[in-house]
Amino acid sequence: MTSNTQVIYVKPPKEYPIIGETMKIAKSTIDLDCALSQGDIIIKNLVLSVDPYMRGRMRDPSIESYAPAFEFNSVMTGDTMSVVIKSNNPKFKQGDLVYGKTGLGYFEEYSHVKGAYADIGYVVRNDPKTTGLPLTYYVGVLGMPGLTAYVGLQKYGKPKKGETLYVSAASGAVGQIVGQIGKALGLHVVGSAGSDEKVAYLKELGFDGAFNYKTQSIDEKLKELCPKGIDIYYESVGGEMLEHVLNHANNFGRIVVCGMISQYNTSNPYPIRNIIYVLTKRLTMSGFIVMDKENIAYEEEFMRTCTQWLLEGKIKYRETVAEGIENTPQALLDVLKGKNFGKQVVKIADL
Amino acid sequence: MTSNTQVIYVKPPKEYPIIGETMKIAKSTIDLDCALSQGDIIIKNLVLSVDPYMRGRMRDPSIESYAPAFEFNSVMTGDTMSVVIKSNNPKFKQGDLVYGKTGLGYFEEYSHVKGAYADIGYVVRNDPKTTGLPLTYYVGVLGMPGLTAYVGLQKYGKPKKGETLYVSAASGAVGQIVGQIGKALGLHVVGSAGSDEKVAYLKELGFDGAFNYKTQSIDEKLKELCPKGIDIYYESVGGEMLEHVLNHANNFGRIVVCGMISQYNTSNPYPIRNIIYVLTKRLTMSGFIVMDKENIAYEEEFMRTCTQWLLEGKIKYRETVAEGIENTPQALLDVLKGKNFGKQVVKIADL
Repeated sequence: MTSNTQVIYVKPPKEYPIIGETMKIAKSTIDLDCALSQGDIIIKNLVLSVDPYMRGRMRDPSIESYAPAFEFNSVMTGDTMSVVIKSNNPKFKQGDLVYGKTGLGYFEEYSHVKGAYADIGYVVRNDPKTTGLPLTYYVGVLGMPGLTAYVGLQKYGKPKKGETLYVSAASGAVGQIVGQIGKALGLHVVGSAGSDEKVAYLKELGFDGAFNYKTQSIDEKLKELCPKGIDIYYESVGGEMLEHVLNHANNFGRIVVCGMISQYNTSNPYPIRNIIYVLTKRLTMSGFIVMDKENIAYEEEFMRTCTQWLLEGKIKYRETVAEGIENTPQALLDVLKGKNFGKQVVKIADL
Repeated sequence: MTSNTQVIYVKPPKEYPIIGETMKIAKSTIDLDCALSQGDIIIKNLVLSVDPYMRGRMRDPSIESYAPAFEFNSVMTGDTMSVVIKSNNPKFKQGDLVYGKTGLGYFEEYSHVKGAYADIGYVVRNDPKTTGLPLTYYVGVLGMPGLTAYVGLQKYGKPKKGETLYVSAASGAVGQIVGQIGKALGLHVVGSAGSDEKVAYLKELGFDGAFNYKTQSIDEKLKELCPKGIDIYYESVGGEMLEHVLNHANNFGRIVVCGMISQYNTSNPYPIRNIIYVLTKRLTMSGFIVMDKENIAYEEEFMRTCTQWLLEGKIKYRETVAEGIENTPQALLDVLKGKNFGKQVVKIADL
């Protein structure tokens, strides 16, 4: 038997998750030499992706939402990159890299994946072997966050050259790509983030304007940096930020609702008092989830395009890499509190 | 000189308009025999339309919004039907019926309209002479409210047979048409209104369900009457009603924001705390204004279709007709307070 450290989801937190209480690290064992039933695979997990939407899965399972609730006292799941070490499934060969997709990859060192689960939760993704791009990119800029940026801006933002795009959480896993695609499309791009270091990074990426929403007046900075008003708001924050943007939105503006992280960890949602601007300014506010079928359909086009951009250096991508599976709960908490810089991932093993 | 009673807008109200203080009736005179400059016309006004959106025009003119602010101490304007009694403009002949459109028709007994204003504010609409339909219909079911219902439901609601449509303010100028079009398209249609008499009328019109939002629990009635959830919400009310609908909306629901009357007359907007459903349920919330060019473009198609429906009895239309120009301020106040039943109009003269 081989030792197998796991990330366990215990129960729903009231506000922020509490390490050791609502999620924890546990030691288990796994038999890597067991005989595999038809369809089963054994994988060694290499990279785990921790993302804000995971907070929404930490709920009472009787509440329906887009991503299934985590099961109490079970191994947590999310997007992962792994390598197949043993297979009795024709879709997966030993040595294949596999992507644990749509939040289904197990957060543990090794996984014995049953056939039916392997078929829906994992897909071969050997691209890193030929592109030479870091494995971590495949759960970030080339994974769910990248696709989210791409689909959200293009399909729901309907950008037109010369328009103003404002991105909140702009140095995050999704925001930094949104901004860079925006620049490539000829938009005036403004972003906000929660530290001066992050703001400096946004300017490095070519954002036309950037500010620290924690130390500067959101209202004044939006006025100053978006002098023509906001045509597209790529929304990841919600609450007070949304209220400010509604004040500065232009007629016929589009609000692309990708996330509302400020509202995930509170039992007292922020009350929005100016939603009437949706009417008077004829705004369109569109919520979307990248995992919906019609959005996942963009994946191939996106991966091809974005790989090219990365290889040509047209898009940069900043990551914070935590080392070791035991740091996963803290890494997730950091994301929910905005302490990460760029895409937060956890590297748990080398290939 | 001929006596000419006028409706005067005095100044912006803080909450509800106050008759005699923020809007009033005034006596003036007009010279109906004067020589007309090139382009001028003199019209006798027959029907005035009072509508909720007019409250938004009673504001500080420095605040921009979709409909221009009323000018202080000036004749109020809105949609009207009138007859030309004298013309020095090739577009208008004596005896022509004219529609004072996009809120530009003068609210007075007679108007001497300058050429430049006549060209943008008035259009010949002799249809009632051949259809035999009441003049009042041409500022209601066949005017701006009818077009609003038609465009809003079709273009922004994107209805699919079998879906559930919920209409607030359902017995009003717009709502009663939305519901009837919804039934014609094969939707499950539910409406709410503010009196049992109005609710009975909705059932008469063929609504599948209807309730009195003042005496019944909105939450319980939505649960009961929309057992499959709400796919399309035709929004005219805002505030607490919107919050309830967000709770009952289905994934991929559309919220067509036509108005938010509950928020027009208050200095303390209702705080919405569940806007996060836009994200988790992937809702689209679209504000629209019928006067926008791309919506006005539907006018011809709409008038042809709707005239046919009315003549065939497929669509019914309920009105409250106030008699006499001096009752205009009260009629408008009634609309803002929901005291009218159906479309509120003011008849000020016979043809």
